[in-house]
Amino acid sequence: MLSDAKTLVEIAHKYNALTIVDAVTSLGGSPVLVDEWGIDAAYSASQKCLSCTPGLSPVTFSERVVDTVAARKDKIHSWFMDMNLLRGYWGETTRTYHHTAPTNSLFALHEALLLIREEGLENAWARVTRHHTALKAGLEAMGLKFLVHEQYQAPQMNAVRCPEGVNEAEVRKTLLSEFGLEIGAGLGPLAGKIWRFGLMGYSCRPDNVMLCLSALGSVLEDMGYDVHVGDAEAAAHAAYASMHNTAAQAKKRKAEAKAA
Amino acid sequence: MLSDAKTLVEIAHKYNALTIVDAVTSLGGSPVLVDEWGIDAAYSASQKCLSCTPGLSPVTFSERVVDTVAARKDKIHSWFMDMNLLRGYWGETTRTYHHTAPTNSLFALHEALLLIREEGLENAWARVTRHHTALKAGLEAMGLKFLVHEQYQAPQMNAVRCPEGVNEAEVRKTLLSEFGLEIGAGLGPLAGKIWRFGLMGYSCRPDNVMLCLSALGSVLEDMGYDVHVGDAEAAAHAAYASMHNTAAQAKKRKAEAKAA
Repeated sequence: MLSDAKTLVEIAHKYNALTIVDAVTSLGGSPVLVDEWGIDAAYSASQKCLSCTPGLSPVTFSERVVDTVAARKDKIHSWFMDMNLLRGYWGETTRTYHHTAPTNSLFALHEALLLIREEGLENAWARVTRHHTALKAGLEAMGLKFLVHEQYQAPQMNAVRCPEGVNEAEVRKTLLSEFGLEIGAGLGPLAGKIWRFGLMGYSCRPDNVMLCLSALGSVLEDMGYDVHVGDAEAAAHAAYASMHNTAAQAKKRKAEAKAA
Repeated sequence: MLSDAKTLVEIAHKYNALTIVDAVTSLGGSPVLVDEWGIDAAYSASQKCLSCTPGLSPVTFSERVVDTVAARKDKIHSWFMDMNLLRGYWGETTRTYHHTAPTNSLFALHEALLLIREEGLENAWARVTRHHTALKAGLEAMGLKFLVHEQYQAPQMNAVRCPEGVNEAEVRKTLLSEFGLEIGAGLGPLAGKIWRFGLMGYSCRPDNVMLCLSALGSVLEDMGYDVHVGDAEAAAHAAYASMHNTAAQAKKRKAEAKAA
C-alpha cells in the first residue's frame, strides 16, 4: 500500500520528529517528492521501479539528518551504514578513500536512471497508473478483491486476496511452470492469503497485463473456480480504451479552446 | 603482507579465543586452508584474486562461531551482518524468505569460481607466485625495495618503497595517462611512501608484468631517476627462464626415475 507520506511527514515535523520514508517500491513508479514533502531520510532499491539489477539501495538525507548524525555521541556498532564514515566521501576539502564500491552495479543504475530520464519521470508514473487501472479492471472482473482501500493502492504492487477454496500455492506454481509468469505470495501474517502482482519498470507493459489476466484466468478456470477466460481481458481492454478516449477528448478540448 | 595465519590461529585456540581471518586479497591467490588451519571465521572479496565484479564478500564460519552467535544475548544493532538472521536462510526445516539478493553479482561470482576450478586452485596459486617472482626480480633490478621481509610478502600484492626524491603521485599519474596502467598508492601512515603492484586473477599475466616494468622504468628514467629501461625486463625474463628450467628439470628427473 501507499502511505500518505506527505501528511505523515507534516505531523512528524509538528512534533519535531525526523522522518524516514520507505521508497523501495514507490521510487520511479509513484511520486516521492523528497524535498517538497520535507522528507528527512528515504531509501529505495535498484530492482523495483528503477528496473535495474538488484544489489543497490539509493538513499537520501536532509540537512537535519546530516546534523543529527554528525552530533551523534554514542558508538556506531556496525561499519555498514555508519553515515559519519560515508560523509567523509563527500568532504569539501579532503575526500576519504572510498573502499571498493560495486562499480558494475553503479554503472547499471546510472543507465537505468538515464532510461527513466528519456521516458520522463512523470510519464513513467502515468504509465504505471495506466497499466494498474487496466490490470485492476481485469482482476476485479474475475471477482478478485484488492487488499486495501482504493486510495491506498500502490499502482506498481497490486495486492489482492486469494479467492476462497483455491490452492493459492498451486496457482502460482502453475503460472510459473506453464506461462513463465511469477507472481508474489503473501509474507508474514498475509502468507497464503494474498497474491501480489507487480507492475514495475520494464515489466510494466500492456502485453504483461494481458498475459497475466489470460494466464491467471486459464489456471483458475482449469481449477474449477467460477471464472470465464476472456472476461478479464475484455474489462482491461475497456479500461485502456476509456483512458485512451479520455486522453484524446482532453487533447481535442485543449485544441478547440486554443482555436476559439 | 601475508600473516602466518596458521600459527596465529593455533596460539589463539590455546587461549580459547575465536579467530577471524582477513582473506580479502589472499583468497584465490595464496593458500587459505580454513578447515585445516582451524580458522573460525574468514571473509574475502569478489574483486581481488577471485577476479570477479566488486560488491560481494564471501564469508565462512566454524561451528564454534555459529554456536557463539546463536547463544548471543545482547541486541544486534544493525540489520546488516546479523548472523542470526542469516542463519534462518539455512534452516533445516523452515527457510526464512531471503530478502532480494544481488543475483547478477552472485551469477558472476559463480562463473568466476568455475574459472578458478577450471584452472585448478593450486595452479592459480602457482601462477601468482611465478609472476610475483618475475615482477620482484624486475622491481629489485630497478633498485626498489620491498616493504616487508621476504617471508611475509604477499605474492598478489607487491608493496615497495617509493624511491627517495621521486614525485610518487606524478609517477602513478603518468603510468595511468601514458600506459593505461594503474598502481596502488599507500594508505594511512604509508600514504606517499609506497606503491602497491597487484597481481590478481585475470590481470596476473606475463604481459602485464613486462608492461609494468617497461612503463615504470620509462617513467622513472624520464624523471631523471637512475634507472635504465631494459634492465628490469631482463631480470624478470631471467627469473621466468630460471623457473621454467627448474620445472623442466624436475619433470625430466621424474620421468627418468619412472623409467629406471
